[in-house]
Amino acid sequence: MMQVIHAPAEMYNQTMLLKMSGKKVGFVPTMGYLHKGHLELLKFAREHCDSLVLSIFVNPTQFGPKEDYGSYPRDLERDKELAAHARVDTIFLPDVDSMYPPGYRTFVEVEELSKGLCGAFRPGHFRGVATIVCKLLNIVAPDEAFFGEKDAQQLVIIRKMAQDLNMPVKISGFPTVRDADGLAMSSRNVYLSDEEREQATGLYRALQNGRSLIEGGETEAARIDAAIREAIARDVPAGVVEYVDIVDGNTLAPVSRTIGKTLIALAVRVGKARLIDNIRVGG
Amino acid sequence: MMQVIHAPAEMYNQTMLLKMSGKKVGFVPTMGYLHKGHLELLKFAREHCDSLVLSIFVNPTQFGPKEDYGSYPRDLERDKELAAHARVDTIFLPDVDSMYPPGYRTFVEVEELSKGLCGAFRPGHFRGVATIVCKLLNIVAPDEAFFGEKDAQQLVIIRKMAQDLNMPVKISGFPTVRDADGLAMSSRNVYLSDEEREQATGLYRALQNGRSLIEGGETEAARIDAAIREAIARDVPAGVVEYVDIVDGNTLAPVSRTIGKTLIALAVRVGKARLIDNIRVGG
Repeated sequence: MMQVIHAPAEMYNQTMLLKMSGKKVGFVPTMGYLHKGHLELLKFAREHCDSLVLSIFVNPTQFGPKEDYGSYPRDLERDKELAAHARVDTIFLPDVDSMYPPGYRTFVEVEELSKGLCGAFRPGHFRGVATIVCKLLNIVAPDEAFFGEKDAQQLVIIRKMAQDLNMPVKISGFPTVRDADGLAMSSRNVYLSDEEREQATGLYRALQNGRSLIEGGETEAARIDAAIREAIARDVPAGVVEYVDIVDGNTLAPVSRTIGKTLIALAVRVGKARLIDNIRVGG
Repeated sequence: MMQVIHAPAEMYNQTMLLKMSGKKVGFVPTMGYLHKGHLELLKFAREHCDSLVLSIFVNPTQFGPKEDYGSYPRDLERDKELAAHARVDTIFLPDVDSMYPPGYRTFVEVEELSKGLCGAFRPGHFRGVATIVCKLLNIVAPDEAFFGEKDAQQLVIIRKMAQDLNMPVKISGFPTVRDADGLAMSSRNVYLSDEEREQATGLYRALQNGRSLIEGGETEAARIDAAIREAIARDVPAGVVEYVDIVDGNTLAPVSRTIGKTLIALAVRVGKARLIDNIRVGG
């Protein structure tokens, strides 16, 4: 029987009891409006723990003042059904006031890694992400926490935070889940019109094109970058590119030549949706 | 038999084993060069736990570039003897490279509370303090951690951090320990010449004077402030006042009238030593 916990203290106490009895606690933090990507992630997590916690919390501190915090899609009843079906044991569902009570003051910052890519276009975003994940990991106290690789920069930052702050948790990534046509699953895909949805499939093809170039021997980042932008301009005419970046897979620092483990990442606005995607090459 | 642990992972594993067997773990983090203030704090902590951990780590990230990180007094052999005498079970003694390995990037910031008092004169100091205490609390994973009230702003910030980040630990303060002549115990008192040491006793008398004024009915912060500064100018002629501040005991915001719980805090440079002290009134 799946239970729903609202109070942080109750959530923590439940984990302590489970750990005392030798159970391994797994954790998937989300902002809800679950899609197939979340469900695959939950399925993977389910196989790697004894008790599975899903959190649903649309975190205000990771949204900029002009971003979609207010309109971010929410459907709690549907999420509960999907979670039960995915054999989630506990949904942790805190309210904003219990996570950020009046007088809240503390933030976690992962320097350098938060500066480029999405960080350059969403000031304060990763400070909000690191802070809420730090809080959730302290409250849920899981043995292992699972994150999607679609949010590549987020995953690198969370791994770094957990390591730097000596948090006693294993952080695991899970490959991006895509629709049959290649579009990365995202709660924000709901913002797309049919025509935009169709064009948006060009983003992953552009990334695959970039990877093919590298695998075919191209090492000049500038040329790979240009080829990806050209493909987007051709196949996603409704798209406005925020960035296409070719960076070191670990440090997220831009590279001029793709020698080692490389991450190609992009953010493109298509209609009302800001879509991100990425692909890893080599290493 | 007191043991010394250097490796963070070993420290964490030890606490987990103790907690599994139902023991309560107490923790006193220090920068070493133990004095009577530390020893009284350890004695208090000893009475409130089953297994007592003392950490000794001179934390580089809380020192400014022109401060005394390099010359901060150290005497590990003496510390070990004093710790054994205080019935410490474990000394956690990490090295700088294990706490801040190359590529370290993550910092904890407690906003507002870190701005005034010492924060105004030591930029980045409380960011370093919050970060190392967050790390140490994750590594030692105590049930309760004990801090001296001499570092009043530090204690307020650490309490706030632990609460805001949902850290599963009780933070306890312990009254400032003073020499017979009133001077607050501090590792930095070793920097004082005999003459300076003698004058420095005037700081606590000035604070007591301020408290007497409030208890006698004075509520104008400006008048209390002036009286304290006058007393310091008279009794501590070698002193250079950094600040004398009259602030709200919880928010550390300056007050113009001393109505509720009030903190009077000061920092005064005497010779090579930067001395801090404080007194609480009302509430």
